Amino acid sequence: MSNQVVAGIVTEVRKQKPLVQAITNYVTINDCANVLISLGASPAMCEARDEVEEFVAIAGALYLNIGTLTAEQKEAMMIAAATASKLGTPVVLDPVGIGSISRKQAFVNQLLSQHKIAVIKGNAGEIKSLAGFAGGIRGVDSTDDGTHVIEACSRLAEEYNTVVVATGMIDTISDGKRVVQVHNGHSALTMVSGTGCMLGAMTAATAAVERDFFLAACAAVVVMGVAGEMAASGMGEIILPGTFRNRLMDCIYQISEKDIIKAGKLTWL
Amino acid sequence: MSNQVVAGIVTEVRKQKPLVQAITNYVTINDCANVLISLGASPAMCEARDEVEEFVAIAGALYLNIGTLTAEQKEAMMIAAATASKLGTPVVLDPVGIGSISRKQAFVNQLLSQHKIAVIKGNAGEIKSLAGFAGGIRGVDSTDDGTHVIEACSRLAEEYNTVVVATGMIDTISDGKRVVQVHNGHSALTMVSGTGCMLGAMTAATAAVERDFFLAACAAVVVMGVAGEMAASGMGEIILPGTFRNRLMDCIYQISEKDIIKAGKLTWL
Amino acid sequence: MSNQVVAGIVTEVRKQKPLVQAITNYVTINDCANVLISLGASPAMCEARDEVEEFVAIAGALYLNIGTLTAEQKEAMMIAAATASKLGTPVVLDPVGIGSISRKQAFVNQLLSQHKIAVIKGNAGEIKSLAGFAGGIRGVDSTDDGTHVIEACSRLAEEYNTVVVATGMIDTISDGKRVVQVHNGHSALTMVSGTGCMLGAMTAATAAVERDFFLAACAAVVVMGVAGEMAASGMGEIILPGTFRNRLMDCIYQISEKDIIKAGKLTWL
Repeated sequence: MSNQVVAGIVTEVRKQKPLVQAITNYVTINDCANVLISLGASPAMCEARDEVEEFVAIAGALYLNIGTLTAEQKEAMMIAAATASKLGTPVVLDPVGIGSISRKQAFVNQLLSQHKIAVIKGNAGEIKSLAGFAGGIRGVDSTDDGTHVIEACSRLAEEYNTVVVATGMIDTISDGKRVVQVHNGHSALTMVSGTGCMLGAMTAATAAVERDFFLAACAAVVVMGVAGEMAASGMGEIILPGTFRNRLMDCIYQISEKDIIKAGKLTWL
Repeated sequence: MSNQVVAGIVTEVRKQKPLVQAITNYVTINDCANVLISLGASPAMCEARDEVEEFVAIAGALYLNIGTLTAEQKEAMMIAAATASKLGTPVVLDPVGIGSISRKQAFVNQLLSQHKIAVIKGNAGEIKSLAGFAGGIRGVDSTDDGTHVIEACSRLAEEYNTVVVATGMIDTISDGKRVVQVHNGHSALTMVSGTGCMLGAMTAATAAVERDFFLAACAAVVVMGVAGEMAASGMGEIILPGTFRNRLMDCIYQISEKDIIKAGKLTWL
Repeated sequence: MSNQVVAGIVTEVRKQKPLVQAITNYVTINDCANVLISLGASPAMCEARDEVEEFVAIAGALYLNIGTLTAEQKEAMMIAAATASKLGTPVVLDPVGIGSISRKQAFVNQLLSQHKIAVIKGNAGEIKSLAGFAGGIRGVDSTDDGTHVIEACSRLAEEYNTVVVATGMIDTISDGKRVVQVHNGHSALTMVSGTGCMLGAMTAATAAVERDFFLAACAAVVVMGVAGEMAASGMGEIILPGTFRNRLMDCIYQISEKDIIKAGKLTWL
């Protein structure tokens, strides 16, 4: 895969403006909606238990984020995932907080065993924990040192016939056969809440337009990484979180095919 | 109506600082709170099932937005609307997502048939759908071309003895007898999530101080349109969503009687 | 206590990066997460009923904010507070809206009588109402004139063996024996939603690293006040809310020991 492929997927999102349904945590639900608009997609945070089945039928992709998993959201996610599986609508799962909370582990296991998940996107600690490794986790943050991340991604991808994204200093994407690492991004992305969720939501948008979900996931990861670099550059020596956050949204809106082709740093393993 | 009337209503909000209660979606609940403060009102997102009845009694207006309609919110809205009807407190209804989700249609029908709604505010697709026309809708966004919008507003206003606002490139407001169109606004308002919700919340604030709800609705629409223009102007050729969003909040805070009188573009039909 | 003590507590937060669990209202939940990151803590908005008990065991402090108290949050808070009491984990309670809504009063009374609360942080109207004085309250905003605030703080602190913070033009902190007032802050802090909640969340972060909760509360109050002043300064004559909000987040990230030592205005009573 080349940066051209990634750039092409982003352009496709902007052309098709896919309808992305999200059932997501209330902390960053607004960031997810706004990042989807900035990328060119059409967000709909349709999450009520008795609405989701109907809505999945018109959605291009479904984003499930278990950060603040209320009882109603839990039920809604199961219904939505079942409908999406039946219809072939891609589902992106963001297992926020897994590893810290056993109930989330049980819920994710149930989701993965019963339904087709196109992409699992987590931080390195979450992905390793899900794959059965001892992942470095503190609350909802990864403290993982990155060892065995590639193995964790590949194993998990094979086991559930899915694509796995593990974020960190270096991001890893695997579908069990192919493995790519992305060397973009900026430490400022950890200075604001929700950049991981935003990446998950963008992955749903790319999966809605590119049925090779491995490529779709790579595209979302590269966009977030390059946009993070663009947002940080030009801010001088001290990156401030309030200002960075707005610039990130601006840069995701602004990012061009040229920016991606020039700055994307994908390496095949 | 003239721009002077609109400007006077805004000044009245700033003088009276009405207490506006909102039961609204979790995507843009923060934007709604902040826009109400910026306009000069006092927001209270009091939405728990067993709190709303008591709170409506002290609120100047009630804003109901069905974007993320949890089971508890659904019950809370019905109780709050019943109390508001009894007390004569104006209710502004924002039927987000209607037309895409039949359960929302059923809920809104129940609200409209049982309770007094002062203003229904939606995008053109939502309003047309609610009025029985084939409205252009995609998820929660309007793709409507604007035909029959005036007829839809008037018909709906008459049927439910209410004021109807349909937003779009041109905004239409009708109470069944009077019809006004507002030619303000900027395409950047569609680049950020929640500007529609923010308009709905502001309409509740104006309805709290102006009992001719037709005039109150016009005032909110003009303020959002003119503030959108102010926010976009001075940003150069490329409007960026993260920056625009902050400027919009700033401009709603800053907008003066003079700005409204100078820039408001109301036309009577 | 001196500004040096306050500055030292802030430095300790940055060193220890305490894990702060929050069950908080959906209006400002994102602001609370971001302010905790900006201060140097690690936020986790873990609030699902069947997750909180497990999570409290790993959290450094627990922040409870009753602004939008859903039925599930109510249950989750009781479970979380019970677990925290058992484990000795400090709990900061933010009684948003108390005085306006009798159900919130009942809930807070139950919390205070059954569990150990380290700090109660409210605006002057809320604290006076909770202490049995006639507090000036309008919805969730304080309209209180500040009389009897010191007495209210002291009485409440003694009754529940806790630390009480009452915010206002002048902020008051008491543990029943010691009383301090903080003369920092800026009126712009009332121009954006959530600054009170952000202070509450920061108080949980300081309480996680300083077991004299009186000192911990003073530190959070001084940080918010000085950061508010820093954010407002340099904005020219007109402070605009959208811009101010971002600057506030930037300044909480940036605030140094020197800033605190230079600008903190604590007076012992």
